[in-house]
Amino acid sequence: MRATVMYRAGDVRVENVPDARLIEPTDAVITITRACICGSDLWPYRLLEPKESGQRMGHEAIGVVEAVGGEVQRFKVGDLVVMPFAYSDGTCDFCHDGLPTSCVHGGFFGVGGPADGAQAEALRVPQADGTLFALPAGKDDALMSSLLSLSDVMGTGHHAAVSARVRRGRAAAVIGDGAVGLCGVIAAKRLGAEPLILLGRHPDRIALAKKFGATHIVSERGDEAVENVRKLTGGFGAHSVLECVGSEDAMRTAMSIVRAGGTVGRVGVPHYEAIPGAGGPMFFNNVTVQGGPAPVRAYIEQLLPDILEGRIEPGRVFDRVIGLDEVPDGYRAMDAREALKVMIKP
Amino acid sequence: MRATVMYRAGDVRVENVPDARLIEPTDAVITITRACICGSDLWPYRLLEPKESGQRMGHEAIGVVEAVGGEVQRFKVGDLVVMPFAYSDGTCDFCHDGLPTSCVHGGFFGVGGPADGAQAEALRVPQADGTLFALPAGKDDALMSSLLSLSDVMGTGHHAAVSARVRRGRAAAVIGDGAVGLCGVIAAKRLGAEPLILLGRHPDRIALAKKFGATHIVSERGDEAVENVRKLTGGFGAHSVLECVGSEDAMRTAMSIVRAGGTVGRVGVPHYEAIPGAGGPMFFNNVTVQGGPAPVRAYIEQLLPDILEGRIEPGRVFDRVIGLDEVPDGYRAMDAREALKVMIKP
Repeated sequence: MRATVMYRAGDVRVENVPDARLIEPTDAVITITRACICGSDLWPYRLLEPKESGQRMGHEAIGVVEAVGGEVQRFKVGDLVVMPFAYSDGTCDFCHDGLPTSCVHGGFFGVGGPADGAQAEALRVPQADGTLFALPAGKDDALMSSLLSLSDVMGTGHHAAVSARVRRGRAAAVIGDGAVGLCGVIAAKRLGAEPLILLGRHPDRIALAKKFGATHIVSERGDEAVENVRKLTGGFGAHSVLECVGSEDAMRTAMSIVRAGGTVGRVGVPHYEAIPGAGGPMFFNNVTVQGGPAPVRAYIEQLLPDILEGRIEPGRVFDRVIGLDEVPDGYRAMDAREALKVMIKP
Repeated sequence: MRATVMYRAGDVRVENVPDARLIEPTDAVITITRACICGSDLWPYRLLEPKESGQRMGHEAIGVVEAVGGEVQRFKVGDLVVMPFAYSDGTCDFCHDGLPTSCVHGGFFGVGGPADGAQAEALRVPQADGTLFALPAGKDDALMSSLLSLSDVMGTGHHAAVSARVRRGRAAAVIGDGAVGLCGVIAAKRLGAEPLILLGRHPDRIALAKKFGATHIVSERGDEAVENVRKLTGGFGAHSVLECVGSEDAMRTAMSIVRAGGTVGRVGVPHYEAIPGAGGPMFFNNVTVQGGPAPVRAYIEQLLPDILEGRIEPGRVFDRVIGLDEVPDGYRAMDAREALKVMIKP
């Protein structure tokens, strides 16, 4: 079969690899019908050290179950499913607590671990019963992009909003106009944030953010951005800040625009060591920092009805559709910001 | 009148100073009947740079109202009151949100700012209506020590527990066997933590922690302490960690014993710059860090009944009672760990 393999920063290829197959009795194999490229895939695309055997890429997909192991009970061949970016058994203490990303039998797809990647024709899914989520059959193509976002980007935006404790009628600020940030706008709007400020600079993304519910846009950087957010929030900063980038600058801005007693919900994979002001203003202002890899599996059930009934349309973050062989160009386009988020139809 | 003034690390004196008097119409002046020395007073006692005119010390007291300004409505001369360590107007957005330590007209006693200190015969209390809390009159001496703890140490222990999201039947670990840590044990027990682990090494304090409800004691340091807490919590660490010290070592231990998805509630004034693992395990394990100066004024109402009805006895942390002129020796005794917490009867 064909699959995406990254060998080093900038070197991503689509190659012939051994077919995906069952290994454990708790596995399923799915044929991928939709996958995509994640903003987080751009970190290795920029930074990956050379790997002789390469790293399978991709962690977001919709697919059809092609085979199930002997212990899989909840799925059968032919089921249409969405997969979260992490696999999990669905039964451990952490899964019960709504944190499947910390599952004791869990792991992540497409990061060079034991699980392969979803930018491929097919994929072995460990812990299928706990991991996969069955989608209503026969859904038309128009909904597929939004359903695909349940794999990661919409669930991650929602996690940013939940982690930032977005509340109805309270100010929220979203840092980052990438696909996660835009889904953070959807999620914060859904939870009633008001005002809802997006910090971003790309006109097309800003336009989408406004459609998603952003009430104000702050396009300046650094101190000027901080000052403008304060002006929009009565001088005190936002109750909730959704940090959707992961850079040191973004985290510094987040900690500068959060109100005393407020919360920074971070979902951008940290490319920084320290939280700015952790021993100073963060403490003296009783600011909370939380977040991490989104437990998207735990969020699918609550987000799905809003997608099926058209109340939210996270699929609009996809602005390019490619075939599997075009994946390397998809990485290039996202890295160059020519594309916001690329969907793959293998 | 007599008051405590610190001139540099180790140099604390009780001196004649101008009498406390009303300045603003929102002020009250109280005659101090009980005060105490705080663990946080030991930081300047160890580190204060020389100050020519000195710094008034003390931020915890019970007193009797001696004079009120023209705009004070809720208090009259003769009222018995407890004061929190921060003053606040009681009406701003932050006060309404339960965070009087961030009051827009607020500040702190005994830190060298515009407000003086409570280790004195009397004290001017700014924003009296928002700051002071009237105690039931005629309470006997036996309750005074526990009522005094509402100024800071019991409210701060409670803030550690609330910030650490202590829940009934879930594991909590308290770092530090000082007076705040011991009040953290009281607070975590009150909120139902089980098991309730104290990390501490002083036999007399450990004995008190057990009386307060600690189910397990971990007296080792570093990796061994981490391993022992994990053994007591099914291998995963504690859902809630109450960081009641403020040193870098304590914070590192806190971040090492918290469970994935768990919360570190910190109330120890940070003497560190960075939260260990903030860009790594804290993120990937979805760990929350929150806390700061305790909004003790907002907690008095809920803690008071438990004290009046004898369900909690935080006053037991006081193990020495001195007069005002003995305050310098009180600092010395607490610094040398001869005394756990010193009460002052001016």
